Amino acid sequence: MAYSVGPLDRLIEQFERLPGIGRKTAQRLAMFILTEPSGAAQKFADAIYEAKKQICYCKHCQNLTDREICAICSDEGRDRTVICVVEGPQDVMAFERTREYKGLYHVLHGAISPLEGIGPDAIRIKELLTRLASGEVDEIILATNPTVEGEATASYISRIVKTMEIKVTRLAYGIPVGGDLEYADEVTLQRALEGRNEL
Amino acid sequence: MAYSVGPLDRLIEQFERLPGIGRKTAQRLAMFILTEPSGAAQKFADAIYEAKKQICYCKHCQNLTDREICAICSDEGRDRTVICVVEGPQDVMAFERTREYKGLYHVLHGAISPLEGIGPDAIRIKELLTRLASGEVDEIILATNPTVEGEATASYISRIVKTMEIKVTRLAYGIPVGGDLEYADEVTLQRALEGRNEL
Repeated sequence: MAYSVGPLDRLIEQFERLPGIGRKTAQRLAMFILTEPSGAAQKFADAIYEAKKQICYCKHCQNLTDREICAICSDEGRDRTVICVVEGPQDVMAFERTREYKGLYHVLHGAISPLEGIGPDAIRIKELLTRLASGEVDEIILATNPTVEGEATASYISRIVKTMEIKVTRLAYGIPVGGDLEYADEVTLQRALEGRNEL
Repeated sequence: MAYSVGPLDRLIEQFERLPGIGRKTAQRLAMFILTEPSGAAQKFADAIYEAKKQICYCKHCQNLTDREICAICSDEGRDRTVICVVEGPQDVMAFERTREYKGLYHVLHGAISPLEGIGPDAIRIKELLTRLASGEVDEIILATNPTVEGEATASYISRIVKTMEIKVTRLAYGIPVGGDLEYADEVTLQRALEGRNEL
């Protein structure tokens, strides 16, 4: 644009960099920031700065935290014999929302993807194996995503952990609750059939 | 959530405050910021801070700018006899993208909306009338949005300006280019009929 305003353009560019945010949305968000009272924008900038400065990885489960050991790992009430292995911190949030799972987690921060050059060493499998070596763990639940990468990661970890006499389980496949059979894809439906339970 | 991480939660909250950003998207954006290199997040925070500090309103057209008089108002090549009146700075951007319009703008920063308690004094109509009093302007193009509020604003301004012997025009209504007649609403179609042109 011929008549650009430097600081505004830079703010729009920064918003546009975010995943799922296009040019128009970036413009709208930047305008929103500019029309807000000054204190609110300052708070936003501070939140980014503070989060980046204070958040680190939990020494045990590798989840995001602002302490050395995260709140879940340091909670005495959780079952230390079960570890749920997930790809990212948002998966931990999802499980915690169910309020059902009482074990610990391990966050891999990614999945094995040969196409993108992500091998087993690029994600935090080594840290998981170190935890398992303590002998405290009876079961690991592989809760990686039901994608090609998630499956590859699950089967890679499963192969190693099975030799350690630890039970390895995988999340059940099936039709999502509240879903419509008509719209379920063939693979999901096939897996739902295979995993059928007697009533 | 029982196991919240303070700085992360605050960042998610800040994203959630933005228009059109829900909880899940806010989480995804916050995660993106945290997994980026530190310099990138710093740049984002700085962009917000700088934009808020440097951006002000052009003394003439009320558009956002980082100088006293914006680049459009201070451009000698623009036609000073025409003013296009818009609701917001993003509308100026939209017109500038057409590369057709060579006149000036006036940004109202809103539209009259009695339901929300926004009267004529809450938007920058007074500043427009001051500009028109200089006698330099021959025509104003009312380019407020085709909504109830936009229409009310246009007719309010039109009533005042018509007494000043200045030509007042409104953007044409009609079917959008590339649109599908089948999906056009009745009012638009009716307006397109009314405004039909001889070929």
